Amino acid sequence: MSAAPPAPKLTLGDINPLTLQAKYAVRGKVPTRAEELKKQLAADPTSVPFKAIINANIGNPQQLDQKPLSFYRRVTSLIQNPDLLDIEAVVAAYPPDTVARARKFLASAKSVGAYSNSQGVESARSSVAEYISKRDGYPASKDDIFLTNGASAAVEYILETCLSGEKSGVLIPIPQYPLYTALISLLGATAMPYYLKEQSGWSIDATEVEKSVVEKLANGVKTKILVLINPGNPTGAILSEEAIGELLTIAAKYGIVVIADEVYQENVYEGKFISTRKVLKNLQAQDPTFYGNVQLASLHSTSKGVSGECGQRAGYMELIGFSDEVRAIFVKMVSINLCSVVTGQAVMEMMVNPPSVGDASYELDQQQRGDIFKALQDRSKYMTDAFNKMNGIECQKAEGAMYLFPRIHLPEKFVAQAQEKGVQPDELYCLELLENTGICTVPGSGFGQVEGTYHCRTTFLPPGVEWINAWEKFHNEFMSEYQ
Amino acid sequence: MSAAPPAPKLTLGDINPLTLQAKYAVRGKVPTRAEELKKQLAADPTSVPFKAIINANIGNPQQLDQKPLSFYRRVTSLIQNPDLLDIEAVVAAYPPDTVARARKFLASAKSVGAYSNSQGVESARSSVAEYISKRDGYPASKDDIFLTNGASAAVEYILETCLSGEKSGVLIPIPQYPLYTALISLLGATAMPYYLKEQSGWSIDATEVEKSVVEKLANGVKTKILVLINPGNPTGAILSEEAIGELLTIAAKYGIVVIADEVYQENVYEGKFISTRKVLKNLQAQDPTFYGNVQLASLHSTSKGVSGECGQRAGYMELIGFSDEVRAIFVKMVSINLCSVVTGQAVMEMMVNPPSVGDASYELDQQQRGDIFKALQDRSKYMTDAFNKMNGIECQKAEGAMYLFPRIHLPEKFVAQAQEKGVQPDELYCLELLENTGICTVPGSGFGQVEGTYHCRTTFLPPGVEWINAWEKFHNEFMSEYQ
Repeated sequence: MSAAPPAPKLTLGDINPLTLQAKYAVRGKVPTRAEELKKQLAADPTSVPFKAIINANIGNPQQLDQKPLSFYRRVTSLIQNPDLLDIEAVVAAYPPDTVARARKFLASAKSVGAYSNSQGVESARSSVAEYISKRDGYPASKDDIFLTNGASAAVEYILETCLSGEKSGVLIPIPQYPLYTALISLLGATAMPYYLKEQSGWSIDATEVEKSVVEKLANGVKTKILVLINPGNPTGAILSEEAIGELLTIAAKYGIVVIADEVYQENVYEGKFISTRKVLKNLQAQDPTFYGNVQLASLHSTSKGVSGECGQRAGYMELIGFSDEVRAIFVKMVSINLCSVVTGQAVMEMMVNPPSVGDASYELDQQQRGDIFKALQDRSKYMTDAFNKMNGIECQKAEGAMYLFPRIHLPEKFVAQAQEKGVQPDELYCLELLENTGICTVPGSGFGQVEGTYHCRTTFLPPGVEWINAWEKFHNEFMSEYQ
Repeated sequence: MSAAPPAPKLTLGDINPLTLQAKYAVRGKVPTRAEELKKQLAADPTSVPFKAIINANIGNPQQLDQKPLSFYRRVTSLIQNPDLLDIEAVVAAYPPDTVARARKFLASAKSVGAYSNSQGVESARSSVAEYISKRDGYPASKDDIFLTNGASAAVEYILETCLSGEKSGVLIPIPQYPLYTALISLLGATAMPYYLKEQSGWSIDATEVEKSVVEKLANGVKTKILVLINPGNPTGAILSEEAIGELLTIAAKYGIVVIADEVYQENVYEGKFISTRKVLKNLQAQDPTFYGNVQLASLHSTSKGVSGECGQRAGYMELIGFSDEVRAIFVKMVSINLCSVVTGQAVMEMMVNPPSVGDASYELDQQQRGDIFKALQDRSKYMTDAFNKMNGIECQKAEGAMYLFPRIHLPEKFVAQAQEKGVQPDELYCLELLENTGICTVPGSGFGQVEGTYHCRTTFLPPGVEWINAWEKFHNEFMSEYQ
């Protein structure tokens, strides 16, 4: 056969065109350039005008200075190696509640090296259900809980199950977390942006949302899913009970599945978080007929909050309101992937069921959680204030999450220069910021923004204020140059 | 708004039709019934004619009696909780190479709670590349390695990137691991079965494979991917260098991406495993022009071999031969999911780089590996012999993997009965086996088989021989009843 000529390699024209469209700015052009600069810095520190790359592009607390919570890691070390329990000094050093917790998890999972039930280890799902019941005041069931590899995997399951091609629409807030647009692209579905109102703290206009549903329907696109991110990413805004209720009313009226992306529910620095599930249950109590059919998927993750356990890849989705037949499809979908990582399931169990008063680990755990929370809260305020003092930057306060999304009034001369180069103006700003200070952020265009406005997303995770001061200095020089 | 009538819940007609088609028998009807029986057994032990459910449906060694390797778990306990290194008794009890390994991994990853590079922690990818280089005698690069959540995630990335709808064909062996057909269904692509020849030890007929490529092309379907599973799942057969070479020749001639699913490469009880990559490199040395463009994705996993670390969800893919532009798409695809579980990446690193002669952990590690291997080898032989003694069962020897796939000559009366009930005859056999003995297997129809033949897949992981004897007793009674 080898007498025949060989076929050429695949080109971009040969592969799935949907994978070409998908974009994911959090690890896009600016972070890629940051990786190059990091290598250059290591090879020749004098070749760049800064001492380190500051990764403010991604919510990855433990890559920066955040320490893991001791309770979690004592327990995960025991479930990874139960033989540690035979070492007296370990049992002496580890508070007894860590030992008990590890034993309980292993009694249910047997080994972290074994595939679990596809939805997850039963005892961990029970803890999640108890947490939700307590949080909302309405009982939850372990059978509705699916433990997943981070919340990202949950989003994939829901989108893949509910969408089929361009006739399926997904309402997403703009700005949004780019996982949504990436997955919608990969599935060939239709993204339906609803714009958050920056000037009123990134609030939602439900009338616009409903209008979009009606208009799309007239064009043959059925709205299948409505995504709400609360607290917001990248905006940091917290939705009011009223706003959530308005969205649920639209969902009830048009039969739209709601994804409540609530992975930042612990990161609340101002105001009060109320879960979409609780708002729904309240509405169902008032009007069971109208709200009875609403189908809701609520998401949570161990990556955020004060846990910051991103690399453990743990999340959950709670599915409520789905018919048994559709629910069975979800079970099949998670079965195809066998199960989520089992150690991550244990971390999730501990996140929703931390040591309580009287437990030996309680005090240290509370102290660690408090310290992490306070550092986040303080830095969010410091940074918001710093931005609002900078010439041409406006920044809404961060009520929650881990990000700020300042609006940058870029000088016309700079915008024109970017357009000449064929680059998004905010991407060019982020690149210049990076080249001059080492600070790595993500341009607003990666999240979506009102045409003609420019933003960037920065986490407030990197420690210290030196880098924020460096940003200020850069920005002032930048504005002098272009204004 | 709530004056409007509420919309109904989603029905199966509203969701993605591709998710309806997808099937995954390993956790399908028979295992689902086994779960019910397990609960019934716990509630009322006298209600069933057996004492326990024997889960022979899934390769999940640590859910049965297999212990994890001590070296792995000492290191993973240290990387989960580096504070253990402050406890003298731990440092005294843990061999120094476990401490060194944990420190090395943490130096590269910083924390298992941090997202890693999207392709994986650099030091772990370097170890994988060294392992491959040594195994094949041809150098590998860490830049070609992608650490994934098990091999399943790798298969998803490749299929999603290379396939677009029904005009894209995927050559899969029959019988096959049902992940492939499930994902092909979800992507709406075309499965192109190539039948393994049972009577000659599940061998491949390359002429048939090429014929299928040509025929499909005439019908407008371009073959994009060729999957080979070596050692075979569910067949246990090992492919010869010649057979692999023939498939690579077809790949070269028609520009087909090859997926070499080699997750059972350590599970070789008879004969010799040769990697597809090595065969390709050999061929490229002989005829660089013809074989130079072949694009290969090789997969491995920590779930199988003697590691059996399924719940840690770790795997890798090595991508070779792809153009830079297509490779960049793969990098984007893994970036959307941020990274694979970091502790799993450490397990993968240890699997490919176990303690070597002179290391403190070496002897114990060798002994544990040897014991696990020997138990698998012995049980595979015992069980093959047992099947071949049973009336109406023929079983090819298992050269590798963890499964047997015996052919069951079901009596005509039984087949007719099944067809009357609208059930696959082998599924009905597996259900009766389960109801009578508690042994949970997967019907051959879940993997594909030649029309009119019937099989089932069983692992040989459950300990002891009592359950095999129970199967024999059931089968003899079954045959007497129906013959």
